[in-house]
Amino acid sequence: MSLLTIALDVMGGDNPPSIILSGAISALQTYPQLQLIICGDALTINRVLAEVKPSFAKRITVLHCQEVISMSDKPSFVLRRKKDASMRRAIECVATGKADACVSAGNTGALFALASYILKTLPGIDRPALVSALPTLGKEKVWLLDLGANVNNDAETLLQNAVMGSVLANKVEHIPRPRVALLNVGEENIKGNAQIKAANDLLKQSSNIHYIGYVEGHDIFANKADVVVTDGFTGNVALKSSEGLLKLMLSEVKRVSNQSLKNRILAAIALPLLKRIFLKMKPDQYNGASLIGLQGIVVKSHGNATGHAFFHAIKQAIDEVEQQVPETIRTTIESIMLE
Amino acid sequence: MSLLTIALDVMGGDNPPSIILSGAISALQTYPQLQLIICGDALTINRVLAEVKPSFAKRITVLHCQEVISMSDKPSFVLRRKKDASMRRAIECVATGKADACVSAGNTGALFALASYILKTLPGIDRPALVSALPTLGKEKVWLLDLGANVNNDAETLLQNAVMGSVLANKVEHIPRPRVALLNVGEENIKGNAQIKAANDLLKQSSNIHYIGYVEGHDIFANKADVVVTDGFTGNVALKSSEGLLKLMLSEVKRVSNQSLKNRILAAIALPLLKRIFLKMKPDQYNGASLIGLQGIVVKSHGNATGHAFFHAIKQAIDEVEQQVPETIRTTIESIMLE
Repeated sequence: MSLLTIALDVMGGDNPPSIILSGAISALQTYPQLQLIICGDALTINRVLAEVKPSFAKRITVLHCQEVISMSDKPSFVLRRKKDASMRRAIECVATGKADACVSAGNTGALFALASYILKTLPGIDRPALVSALPTLGKEKVWLLDLGANVNNDAETLLQNAVMGSVLANKVEHIPRPRVALLNVGEENIKGNAQIKAANDLLKQSSNIHYIGYVEGHDIFANKADVVVTDGFTGNVALKSSEGLLKLMLSEVKRVSNQSLKNRILAAIALPLLKRIFLKMKPDQYNGASLIGLQGIVVKSHGNATGHAFFHAIKQAIDEVEQQVPETIRTTIESIMLE
Repeated sequence: MSLLTIALDVMGGDNPPSIILSGAISALQTYPQLQLIICGDALTINRVLAEVKPSFAKRITVLHCQEVISMSDKPSFVLRRKKDASMRRAIECVATGKADACVSAGNTGALFALASYILKTLPGIDRPALVSALPTLGKEKVWLLDLGANVNNDAETLLQNAVMGSVLANKVEHIPRPRVALLNVGEENIKGNAQIKAANDLLKQSSNIHYIGYVEGHDIFANKADVVVTDGFTGNVALKSSEGLLKLMLSEVKRVSNQSLKNRILAAIALPLLKRIFLKMKPDQYNGASLIGLQGIVVKSHGNATGHAFFHAIKQAIDEVEQQVPETIRTTIESIMLE
């Protein structure tokens, strides 16, 4: 077991660093090979770390950063002006080889812009994609991408997303031949647009991907595919609208519960159960989302990350380091280009 | 109260005509001004109608059709070959003025193709859109379009969808100034693509639409807008993926319920409540979806339509007739073009 180092941006997101740091400490506990570079305000970080066991503390380096990227900062502003932001410093640790991966709960747009600028994409990948593993009807997860990093929807982008998703499912989830599907509309008149049809043709030709064809929106969670590929616009809407309807369902349970005593009792019983399930369903709260296609590993934790969510994001980064995900994407893309 | 006539295609969909016809009879009961032209196999229809009260029976005309469009028939095949299909005959009743609207539970692709071909779009509308009213966190509904009729996503199409949705919300839901929003991706680097930005500019300029700007996927059900506008690809995915996640949640409740006796009891109590709510959330099962932008009124009931769902689709058609929806869309588009 070789050591590995992860750089953490602990200043991003809606919650204070102390909550995020609790996830970092859990990760040190779980992974003895882990070293951390913690980027952010040293005063705040050291105050939290003062209570940490010395055996953990010596595996931590604190990198003091004077700036913080807020959730409303524009990417262009961040790129030009916030040179000493904790997020930027964490990504730079990956670029300079000081860290094997970085994790942030901060502003997604800024993370995308900084990571693309500093780390650059892999050869054969035009733009990175945001991908997360979502729950399905089976025990298996489904990797949906792109969740909003890249709104281009041409066939080449979709093919690249397919490769990246397939590598992740194979390497991180250990699925020998991940079933890769292309998200499309259903029984309607025109099945998809020109880009989807062109991507379908490209995917059929590729012997490096186990392509199973089109799936529809309701198939995402139905365990029909291990990887569902779409553009960043559609993927973002699919994920967020699903979460929106779930939230509506929970609120409807609460509303109905006020209609009668019987309903109130039913709801009181049902709500804890529902909330537990809801939390599991709310994918980005629970899992990290990887920004893949870069020459380096970047994992995004939810903006409202709890220690538990941040721990999972670190775990995902570790998996990607140990499974050499960027390197495998590079070689797979290469062999597809030589086909 | 003037009489109105609706043509029904009772052969489409997954359920037998008798189930659909029960919804038609309820509509006759509820709407004394309603006359029906029932298109389909006369033998089957008459067998069901034999048990209907004479006062209802005399408001029904049966139009015998020899052909049925199956759920797997391709639109091109239907257009060329199935000239005596019940769906086609029902649409023709609208074209010839025998009926004021038509309702079908059949193949969406075939309905889109036949209706576009026979009825033609309104001046200023390039292609019809599929729209349905979905539940929200408030008491209000939200009209989401396009649900899959037209996968074009240029700015002009989005503007036309905005006009049609706004007219429907105003006329059918009686909202004086419907809040119209454009579906976009969120906090990510690039907010939307070129088409979305161009549509945003067009909508801002239009004094005929109460445009409130962008919303994200999770806002669809959050009662932030009365009309949410998107292209047919994204809209279809948003609707179907939301339904998919709800289905997953129900199945998760069932799975968890088998884990312990306590959970089994909890789930047994909670499930009926959840199912009732789920049914309400499953929008196309409950409401009709209108194919709007045509020179005539066409409402699509769910393929698996129950009598109740079919009744709601007929109700929606009646509302659109009485509120002269196509005429209002025509004049609104006209005044926008003159702006």
